[in-house]
Amino acid sequence: MSASLNDYMQTLGQQARAAARVLSGAPTEKKNAALSCIYDALKTGRQHILAANAKDMQRGQERNLDAALLDRLELTPVRFEGMLQGLKDVIALIDPVGVITDLAYRPSGIQIGKMRVPLGVVGMIYESRPNVTLEAASLALKSGNAIILRGGSEAFESNQAIAKCIQNGLRAAHLPEHCVQVIDTPDRDAVGLLITMSEFVDVIVPRGGKSLIERITNEASIPVIKHLDGNCHVFVERQADLQKALPICFNAKTHRYGVCNAMETLLLDEPIAEDFLPMIAELYLEKGVELRGCDETRRILGETVVAKASEEDWYTEYLGPVLAIKIVDGITQAIDHINQYGSHHTDAIVTENYSMARQFLREVDSSSVMVNASTRFADGFEYGLGAEIGISTDKIHARGPVGLEGLTSQKWIVLGDGQIRH
Amino acid sequence: MSASLNDYMQTLGQQARAAARVLSGAPTEKKNAALSCIYDALKTGRQHILAANAKDMQRGQERNLDAALLDRLELTPVRFEGMLQGLKDVIALIDPVGVITDLAYRPSGIQIGKMRVPLGVVGMIYESRPNVTLEAASLALKSGNAIILRGGSEAFESNQAIAKCIQNGLRAAHLPEHCVQVIDTPDRDAVGLLITMSEFVDVIVPRGGKSLIERITNEASIPVIKHLDGNCHVFVERQADLQKALPICFNAKTHRYGVCNAMETLLLDEPIAEDFLPMIAELYLEKGVELRGCDETRRILGETVVAKASEEDWYTEYLGPVLAIKIVDGITQAIDHINQYGSHHTDAIVTENYSMARQFLREVDSSSVMVNASTRFADGFEYGLGAEIGISTDKIHARGPVGLEGLTSQKWIVLGDGQIRH
Repeated sequence: MSASLNDYMQTLGQQARAAARVLSGAPTEKKNAALSCIYDALKTGRQHILAANAKDMQRGQERNLDAALLDRLELTPVRFEGMLQGLKDVIALIDPVGVITDLAYRPSGIQIGKMRVPLGVVGMIYESRPNVTLEAASLALKSGNAIILRGGSEAFESNQAIAKCIQNGLRAAHLPEHCVQVIDTPDRDAVGLLITMSEFVDVIVPRGGKSLIERITNEASIPVIKHLDGNCHVFVERQADLQKALPICFNAKTHRYGVCNAMETLLLDEPIAEDFLPMIAELYLEKGVELRGCDETRRILGETVVAKASEEDWYTEYLGPVLAIKIVDGITQAIDHINQYGSHHTDAIVTENYSMARQFLREVDSSSVMVNASTRFADGFEYGLGAEIGISTDKIHARGPVGLEGLTSQKWIVLGDGQIRH
Repeated sequence: MSASLNDYMQTLGQQARAAARVLSGAPTEKKNAALSCIYDALKTGRQHILAANAKDMQRGQERNLDAALLDRLELTPVRFEGMLQGLKDVIALIDPVGVITDLAYRPSGIQIGKMRVPLGVVGMIYESRPNVTLEAASLALKSGNAIILRGGSEAFESNQAIAKCIQNGLRAAHLPEHCVQVIDTPDRDAVGLLITMSEFVDVIVPRGGKSLIERITNEASIPVIKHLDGNCHVFVERQADLQKALPICFNAKTHRYGVCNAMETLLLDEPIAEDFLPMIAELYLEKGVELRGCDETRRILGETVVAKASEEDWYTEYLGPVLAIKIVDGITQAIDHINQYGSHHTDAIVTENYSMARQFLREVDSSSVMVNASTRFADGFEYGLGAEIGISTDKIHARGPVGLEGLTSQKWIVLGDGQIRH
């Protein structure tokens, strides 16, 4: 690792820390003014940003990047408008910083409460989606945090152009431009430095493939808000209303395939399997979903229709038109399966039985647990959080969709009138 | 590292994970019954535990351990009773698990809320204080977490004897005995394994010297709830009521010296320094507190009374009868000093001015920020949390005193009536 890279990253870190101090004390009005100035700067810089993106696209095509990556990389005029709309949505969100809760008197006469405060400096590492640059920056600013961004190298020109507009906006609003910094070297060692600068960075948010996230988690000496698998389940319990179960099971699998809150394994309670399986299987097969099942599933639907699921299938997040199906004997087996094979992301039960719903909610160890609703609802917008910076499958700090509040912490405040400890 | 140690730790981890699954679903009544059975088992095992402690003490004396360590190690009959009382206090605490908050309807028709859940498995590493074994175990059990304990080797016999009583109590209450496990090998490599078994352990809580905690934080691949320095400040602002400032400043420094919430640096606003300093200095000097000050402090009190404070002094947690004093020009300098040199633990302002109090509360970046109260109040009992498993100087997850709630997380719950995503 070169000494100059180290110096460069140290400088970014110091600048971010200094900017964060100013930003943490900035009132809501000032932060919103800055976001509005950024909005204006992006509108003004539109042609420049689109031209930069065209350069990235051209280089990507020359390098034969795969189509999915090029699709994520491309900033079409429609996507650009969507990005601006997202920024307006963040301006409209309620500022979580400074909110005081639970202020109550203690026997000693002091009052104790909690005040919500920014985390400080966020380090974000993400793939080649230029819109994430603006989304992450705006969420960080609104929650009073400085941010250091490291996007995929394929989006280098786009990210630099967007960053320039963001910094112009910050200056126009008299906030430090170092509130948002984009790492401007393609050197991969920069990531290694970012995730270990614990004196300057308070939390790391990685977005990308599982192997990248695992590597970052293992190497980071800073807390990481991370999302690994989304191996989600729907369990249709014996007292389910099958007219609710059908659309829920269909929606959870087929609404979108490549998303983390899509169902990957369907669990069916034994007494309803014989009735329910042929109905739901017909819908899946019409839609082109490949089915893999346990022996009992194959007996009911026929071995030509359903391939045999291996042990590995129960662990798998297909992210595509494939579904594993297992027939279980009651809720305890279902919950055990979910807690053992699942990824603690989002799991749902379909039932009309009060006690079964209650037990499922309590015992399933996932960041979102649902009754009679599609797993696809596990999303910041659907939960009313506004834009999300990620979905966490961790238990510490933030769990599930991470919005503005996930980028804050709480400090204790004590209001006294001269009290001393006896 | 031996293969057998690795196997042993893996077994502990698997057992803890299995026990945690049972415990997380246990109702409050069952957890309290287990704590009561542990209480009975400890009363029955009293002589055995005290005899084991006597063995530890004898070995410690033979090895010439220092007096402070031997003092912490000793379980006197009075301390034993205190330990039992602490257990009763935990039984009386409200169970945080299962509490549902913020349940509200969304436009889609689903209801979204949060349910408080245990973290899972806690790994606790601590010095040679046998009473911590019971305290940590009881807090973990009450909050629905399994725990793996690694106490200092000097307390080996005491910890094993206490652990045996805890496990007897768990069995009597029909909960898995592996809910609480004490590592029974003195091999130091066990710690290295404990803090990297991320498949079995969800959070590490280290208690001990700063160097130990830093080493664990750097080497752990599991989130750490940690407490480093307690470099606390009191700032006497120019509009302070000096009759409140005197007892607060005296109490914060001298109530107990060796605690993390004791004041280490006193900041005085320039306009009141000339009046206030001689009054408070007289109290400190009578009590035998050594003073180290800035040039202005030395001018007012005399250079024979106050040694010159070095840059290093402003960073120092003395944990003893020493106090650094600095005269600042207004609240901004005070806040800057605290945020730069402090350890983000606990800091207080003394003032009658509303705007100064408001600014201090907002801008000081510490886990506890106080107005007109002694820093000594930063404590789980004083905050109404009950016993604390530690005081966190981190921002992520838990900040300040960490009680039962700090050992829990929240999952999202979604209650629907057949809703699907459009």
